[in-house]
Amino acid sequence: MTIASIDEPLPAIEEPPRSGWHYRHLLDVDVLTWPDIELVLRTADAMTEVLGRPIAKVPALRGTNVTILFYEASTRTRVSFEVAAKNLAADVVNIAAATSSVTKGESLVDTVRTVEALGADVLVIRHPVSGAPYLAAETFGGSVLNGGDGWHGHPTQALLDLYTLRQRLPGGSVEGRKVVILGDLLHSRVARSNVWSLTAAGADLWLCGPPTLLRGFDAWADAGAAGRRFTVTSDVTAALRDADAVMALRIQRERMAAGLLPSLREYAARYGLTADRLKLAKPDALVLHPGPINEGVEIAPDVAAGDRSVITDQVANGVAIRMALLYLLAGAREDAVA
Amino acid sequence: MTIASIDEPLPAIEEPPRSGWHYRHLLDVDVLTWPDIELVLRTADAMTEVLGRPIAKVPALRGTNVTILFYEASTRTRVSFEVAAKNLAADVVNIAAATSSVTKGESLVDTVRTVEALGADVLVIRHPVSGAPYLAAETFGGSVLNGGDGWHGHPTQALLDLYTLRQRLPGGSVEGRKVVILGDLLHSRVARSNVWSLTAAGADLWLCGPPTLLRGFDAWADAGAAGRRFTVTSDVTAALRDADAVMALRIQRERMAAGLLPSLREYAARYGLTADRLKLAKPDALVLHPGPINEGVEIAPDVAAGDRSVITDQVANGVAIRMALLYLLAGAREDAVA
Amino acid sequence: MTIASIDEPLPAIEEPPRSGWHYRHLLDVDVLTWPDIELVLRTADAMTEVLGRPIAKVPALRGTNVTILFYEASTRTRVSFEVAAKNLAADVVNIAAATSSVTKGESLVDTVRTVEALGADVLVIRHPVSGAPYLAAETFGGSVLNGGDGWHGHPTQALLDLYTLRQRLPGGSVEGRKVVILGDLLHSRVARSNVWSLTAAGADLWLCGPPTLLRGFDAWADAGAAGRRFTVTSDVTAALRDADAVMALRIQRERMAAGLLPSLREYAARYGLTADRLKLAKPDALVLHPGPINEGVEIAPDVAAGDRSVITDQVANGVAIRMALLYLLAGAREDAVA
Repeated sequence: MTIASIDEPLPAIEEPPRSGWHYRHLLDVDVLTWPDIELVLRTADAMTEVLGRPIAKVPALRGTNVTILFYEASTRTRVSFEVAAKNLAADVVNIAAATSSVTKGESLVDTVRTVEALGADVLVIRHPVSGAPYLAAETFGGSVLNGGDGWHGHPTQALLDLYTLRQRLPGGSVEGRKVVILGDLLHSRVARSNVWSLTAAGADLWLCGPPTLLRGFDAWADAGAAGRRFTVTSDVTAALRDADAVMALRIQRERMAAGLLPSLREYAARYGLTADRLKLAKPDALVLHPGPINEGVEIAPDVAAGDRSVITDQVANGVAIRMALLYLLAGAREDAVA
Repeated sequence: MTIASIDEPLPAIEEPPRSGWHYRHLLDVDVLTWPDIELVLRTADAMTEVLGRPIAKVPALRGTNVTILFYEASTRTRVSFEVAAKNLAADVVNIAAATSSVTKGESLVDTVRTVEALGADVLVIRHPVSGAPYLAAETFGGSVLNGGDGWHGHPTQALLDLYTLRQRLPGGSVEGRKVVILGDLLHSRVARSNVWSLTAAGADLWLCGPPTLLRGFDAWADAGAAGRRFTVTSDVTAALRDADAVMALRIQRERMAAGLLPSLREYAARYGLTADRLKLAKPDALVLHPGPINEGVEIAPDVAAGDRSVITDQVANGVAIRMALLYLLAGAREDAVA
Repeated sequence: MTIASIDEPLPAIEEPPRSGWHYRHLLDVDVLTWPDIELVLRTADAMTEVLGRPIAKVPALRGTNVTILFYEASTRTRVSFEVAAKNLAADVVNIAAATSSVTKGESLVDTVRTVEALGADVLVIRHPVSGAPYLAAETFGGSVLNGGDGWHGHPTQALLDLYTLRQRLPGGSVEGRKVVILGDLLHSRVARSNVWSLTAAGADLWLCGPPTLLRGFDAWADAGAAGRRFTVTSDVTAALRDADAVMALRIQRERMAAGLLPSLREYAARYGLTADRLKLAKPDALVLHPGPINEGVEIAPDVAAGDRSVITDQVANGVAIRMALLYLLAGAREDAVA
């Protein structure tokens, strides 16, 4: 860290090119073509360079109001967006829905109209109902960025996962690599978004979990829509064998009440990512987890903190990916105005 | 939105004149003369111009600490003050009383002393007890801005309502215009502040609601103190006939428990602002609501979202009005020091 | 307050010297030598000068991310750190643990790793478990600043108390002065940290409270480790007689449930700092309290607000002390990198 003793202007960003980006919102990754995704990842490379500077800030979004409207508790995603926006010199407004008057029965559309009238240029929204960001985007005059909606999607997480895989896999590509997503697929917006981006990247994608937590993915895999191909199985040995990367998903205690899981202990015994089980994968296989971790349930502590784990890289890359997306969306709004 | 690629200084504000403003606090609108009010509205015009810029910020309050101390949940008012302060380059501290140690039994006076010692120059306070901001102003060395106190007053709301009416009424004046406030007057700090400012502006003001929710306003109207004249009635037809503007007030569900209202359904049927009922007013009558809205109770969804509705303008103008007040109060403190 | 009408760079801080400071973290005051403490106090003098400027900001920590992670509710300490960091132009992220996913069972170590990956350079942590900041410091790559841990320590409070005493005591020194800490010592992290710093400063330190709330301090006093000498007593008359300064500690209602106190009324009668009892002390004795105050319990309202009270000075000095520590820790990190 460098102590600036005078108030110098922030150094100009060498603006990465934004030509080719023409989305005002980012609601999920399913609409992104492979060139779109590559543009995001290249822009994130530029942001990673900024993050390595003594003063990790650029003035690219100066005067832009980024409002972070979260209807679900979250630390890492909320702070990641906040830090990303501040690193671009944007002004950030946080609204936690549980403690605000949005609980007074105001409709989502009214809230979105109000947030816009209050000056928001970008709305980052997390909502327990699948599709809520789409409804917001119909009303909002600026850009909507989906920070996670119900079981549906979590596009920034999928993009940071892909970015992390490319950064850490030998050769820098996911193409042809065996990537396993292990755990509670049914309730996972992370998994659903990752299916789109990892298949687009050409991964040999495997989804593995208890049969009760795989519902719906079979039909999706069979359909193989638009060339998306992935394997769905409850056979954890088959899934992990020779894998290049394994992403464990969080198991939520609430799921047992619904009769979907017998017990956390049994889940851990049969599907938990332990050091023993990881031996099935390639020797240098990467370990991912979207966090927060239930240590000893879906992942063993020594695996989560081990030398194959890229969990902390995922968090750091999340800031770069969100900076990239805020930057690209701002350009799209500017073009719309011009 | 414009992407600033270098960190240019914010453009100087052409400082609107502040001569004639000599209030250190703004606790209610009752003390304001008509020239005072006009100064606020003219200053808000200058701030509206700032809000229209690509970078909607000016450095007028740089180095000023604005502390927002809210003892009641609120999204729109809290965020409006926060955005207004940040647009003037102030530093903002948010304190939500429910989650802070003010709930440990510390007295309001102690809290105000502490907030001042922590560096607050301006204290924006919302409190469930009428008069609390007056108590705060007796102790606080900077400026106190009332963000709503009990049933008593909400001066920034009244000023933004007046600003919106003048902006949208033909001729740009409220003088002689029939303005109706419809709903739960009894519990409404918005209504009480509006009585002062709308009568000062020369409006033909009508207050209408169920008799149980009009208590106290009759006596006030009869007194006609200081030339304030307004009509109080439960006859919604008489109130709405040929109105130029109708402001519906939020009905709170808690009121029914107190026996003041039979049911929300009955309230909606007899006093709700529906499209049919609005036909009694002038063809281009404006519709206002301080928010948040209970759609289908005090206002029908098609009216709230209709082309006469200026509800979103109210929210946007709230930022301009609050910027104007923060700016004027800062000048008054500066004069006191000089 | 001065209205800046152009966006001038912040004036450079005349950097106070940091030579001699070689701590990356501040976890408690026990490790600080007297020259270390004097360096903090001298640096706080420089920060007090900054706080007296029209624009009380310097760019010393520009680009530094200060994350304030509080696992206990707090207004004054949280806001004090936030204001101190912003006065040095740092970026601040607030995480209130009760409302965040750290309640989802994530371990402290995972949270600290995540916060670091999100970009935190300085971590200010408050935690109900004694020692938690030490655990955080083992993991965190930047600087950890203890904002209060369990019953163990509250180093910034002890330093601001010492700073306030030196500022207000005749002669500007604590050496040989009789300083009394009165109240619930047992549960007080404030008292434990003050024992270290006040004895280091050469105070004649007395600890006084009901016998049930003094447990453990007797043995500590008898040990007299490393030349730390202080008197422990339940005799409030002996303690207060000819005192130069009295610090009353907050009594928490929860303590009665545990059978440690008969009633608040009885506590107030026997140990409360009343005007009568204060007559035992020197005529110009200072009155301190770490806040928030239970008026009428551990301290009488007229004493808390009286002319000997320096409680508000403590709050104001807290900002200067925290600015000084953030500044010194930043220098230590810089040296580590260079």
